[in-house]
Amino acid sequence: MRFHLVIHILGFLLLFLAVAMLLPIPFAIYYGGGDYPSFIVTAVLTFIIGIISYRFTKLDREVRSREGFAIVTLGWILFSLLGCLPFVLSGHISSFTDAYFETMSGFTTTGATILVDIEKLPHGLLFWRSFTHWLGGMGIIVLSLAILPFLGVGGMQLFKAEVPGPVPDKLTPRVTETAKILWGVYVIISAAETILLMAGGMTFFDALCHTFGTMATGGFSTKNASIGYYDSPFIQYVIIFFMITAGTNFSLHYRFMKKDWKGYFRNNEFRLFILLIAVGTIIIGYDTLLHHYPYIEVAFRKTLFQVVSILTTTGYGTADYEQWAFSSQFILFLFMFVGGCAGSTGGGMKVVRLYILIQFVRSEIKRLLHPSAVIPVRIGETVIPREIVTNVIGFLALMIGLFIFGVILMSMLGLDLETSLGAVAATLGNIGPGLGDVGPTDNYAHIPLLGKWFLTFFMLAGRLEIYTVLILFAPSFWQK
Amino acid sequence: MRFHLVIHILGFLLLFLAVAMLLPIPFAIYYGGGDYPSFIVTAVLTFIIGIISYRFTKLDREVRSREGFAIVTLGWILFSLLGCLPFVLSGHISSFTDAYFETMSGFTTTGATILVDIEKLPHGLLFWRSFTHWLGGMGIIVLSLAILPFLGVGGMQLFKAEVPGPVPDKLTPRVTETAKILWGVYVIISAAETILLMAGGMTFFDALCHTFGTMATGGFSTKNASIGYYDSPFIQYVIIFFMITAGTNFSLHYRFMKKDWKGYFRNNEFRLFILLIAVGTIIIGYDTLLHHYPYIEVAFRKTLFQVVSILTTTGYGTADYEQWAFSSQFILFLFMFVGGCAGSTGGGMKVVRLYILIQFVRSEIKRLLHPSAVIPVRIGETVIPREIVTNVIGFLALMIGLFIFGVILMSMLGLDLETSLGAVAATLGNIGPGLGDVGPTDNYAHIPLLGKWFLTFFMLAGRLEIYTVLILFAPSFWQK
Repeated sequence: MRFHLVIHILGFLLLFLAVAMLLPIPFAIYYGGGDYPSFIVTAVLTFIIGIISYRFTKLDREVRSREGFAIVTLGWILFSLLGCLPFVLSGHISSFTDAYFETMSGFTTTGATILVDIEKLPHGLLFWRSFTHWLGGMGIIVLSLAILPFLGVGGMQLFKAEVPGPVPDKLTPRVTETAKILWGVYVIISAAETILLMAGGMTFFDALCHTFGTMATGGFSTKNASIGYYDSPFIQYVIIFFMITAGTNFSLHYRFMKKDWKGYFRNNEFRLFILLIAVGTIIIGYDTLLHHYPYIEVAFRKTLFQVVSILTTTGYGTADYEQWAFSSQFILFLFMFVGGCAGSTGGGMKVVRLYILIQFVRSEIKRLLHPSAVIPVRIGETVIPREIVTNVIGFLALMIGLFIFGVILMSMLGLDLETSLGAVAATLGNIGPGLGDVGPTDNYAHIPLLGKWFLTFFMLAGRLEIYTVLILFAPSFWQK
Repeated sequence: MRFHLVIHILGFLLLFLAVAMLLPIPFAIYYGGGDYPSFIVTAVLTFIIGIISYRFTKLDREVRSREGFAIVTLGWILFSLLGCLPFVLSGHISSFTDAYFETMSGFTTTGATILVDIEKLPHGLLFWRSFTHWLGGMGIIVLSLAILPFLGVGGMQLFKAEVPGPVPDKLTPRVTETAKILWGVYVIISAAETILLMAGGMTFFDALCHTFGTMATGGFSTKNASIGYYDSPFIQYVIIFFMITAGTNFSLHYRFMKKDWKGYFRNNEFRLFILLIAVGTIIIGYDTLLHHYPYIEVAFRKTLFQVVSILTTTGYGTADYEQWAFSSQFILFLFMFVGGCAGSTGGGMKVVRLYILIQFVRSEIKRLLHPSAVIPVRIGETVIPREIVTNVIGFLALMIGLFIFGVILMSMLGLDLETSLGAVAATLGNIGPGLGDVGPTDNYAHIPLLGKWFLTFFMLAGRLEIYTVLILFAPSFWQK
């Protein structure tokens, strides 16, 4: 571990963060909530730390995978640490734990909140809260498409092969180039959503904040009732469309913009993603149409919205799904683990891993019927190397293990089983709202202090594909 | 598929069942409940079907794996079909669905009951009910130690290597020989338990029935309050000891009787099994001592009893664990999936598979730290072949998949989430009592008809290591 490289790059990223912290200021001043000084102070502090770290170290060698792991995990921890200061300094979130939880929830694009009354927050902080989503989403796209594949995390190297998007062949020098391309795509789609939401009747401010929440599959809203605040079916369909877009591999969007129109439906992961949405909507819609909403369009829209919102790990809501049938709740609960496609801003285990798991089980059953045959695991026509399959399975086992560990912890803190299951699934999968006392109409304010820190850790671990975070606990990782 | 071989062997097994059906008759007559004619009728019917199947077919060729799968699954289905007749014919369980559920629960050593008042049943039927456990347990020992390893089911071939017990090298001719040795061990241990339970104050009848329930890790009791009926700490410790014994690989017992005293603690699976019991008892005991039982011995005994009962998938009870902390309930719920050791009468996924999974995840994490190193999965010093590891993982994925499928089904039938989770886990893992409305103080009487059939299927699938049952659904399985 060569710490000076880690400090150098983190310093560079902090300069970027300092600039980002200036953006809420116009909104804070325009709407007048007295929150602008806290952004100025935080931005200056961030800039000073950043410039010191950057100038007193040198990028004199190539960054290796170990430094990569450290930069990624420490980066998210540090961003949340500085990013939570405006909440604390302005006095709007008095507890440091709560402010850190809220900010980590933002940067990890989770969307779990400790705020009981969101609408009481001044506009500068509301903007910043949503903006942390968008910045986190940016980070994730580059992470999953450019950095993780090279770190060999949980089979992520596979996606290089499946979607030959704008992914470079070497880690350090071309990360910036790839990042620029992908962020271009991200900005263009975000602009499109903002315009459409304004066309549907949202103010520029709300359209922008909800775009941040959608594109990052985050889920922070500026309204207590989330998207349920807006009656407009148009707004709801627009958000459904962009949640699906945000949950799709951004390499596919890049290829689409390069005129490869049919790229989406040649992609096996995307097809399974759409299939899951369709099956979920049909099964749950059967219940909601029969028991909750008398009109087909309403039942369809409310069901589709919730299925897409949970599967993409966004967490926006237009209905209280805890009123729906137990089977519907259980399907949504399962979807929390699946998440979006790889290379999207979605969390969870990613659809491609489910795809590989299904293909793997199929191959094992076939092998039982034909013991002497060699049956490889495939994505479409492509044979997946054995080590990637085991890598993916190891990831899933680790995720289930961490989930179980989390539920035991939370239930030992006194939370009931449903709340524990919901809270851990919703943070580990970066969804936001869970089940029980952290359901779509609740928040995380009542979780015990220790529980909030555990959940903060699960958000981070879930967001960074688990391995990336857990590897930092291995003593041999830190050795020279 | 050569059906005549399947019919021939099933016919032979039915002759064995017909004889077993005569055993309840002395108890039926002695205690006088008017239930003995139903056993005579059933035994005669079973004998006729058995002798016809056996005499009109010939074992003219060696049994291959396909016939093996068919015999095992159809055998359990057929035994339950004929075994449930005494309940129906005597009129004590009027619904065929209920009688079939109860009998399958017996033969699969599950112990889930549809009886609201067990003590109302006449003694002949009570004996038969417990005896189905013991017969099922006998079947399982031979199945897991002699038959499944050759069918290549879910890594079971591994146990041949790890415990070189009395396992033959060829399937057909020596199965009988192995069976005799193992059943000898089974009978000796059973006799010991019966004697000890009588020494503790049980009647011969109750001691026998509870021995059947313990040795098969079944869980049927002759009392509504299960083992809670007996205040005696001695009886409870005896049952704890024999549940652990029944949950241990019977090859180890065989080796113990051959004077290999230390065999148990050289066995990695057994060590993990004991570790799980210890950890579970400490974590849960912390809560029960603090909040439920004022004396250390009582808290220790009640906690240990429940941990062992659930982990070995027996399902006997001395306490209502639904009153305990949520974390305790969740740990017991997880233990439902683990089950006993391979080659025991315990259900679940088996401790050895958990062991392999843990070692597998460890090797994957190591590989991330040292990308170029070759890190095999080991049991102790032995390297596990790659294909057995994937076999085990495929099994676990299939088990989780079936569990999820089951919970969706049950919740669609209107059961709440906790009950659905509990009912499917408790049947698929062959435990018996679950959570919610099928908890330790409840029964399965109120489950909708369709739900009872699904659960019957889960008991069978869980008992026969899933693959064995599911493979029968593959069309290519039945082709010539």
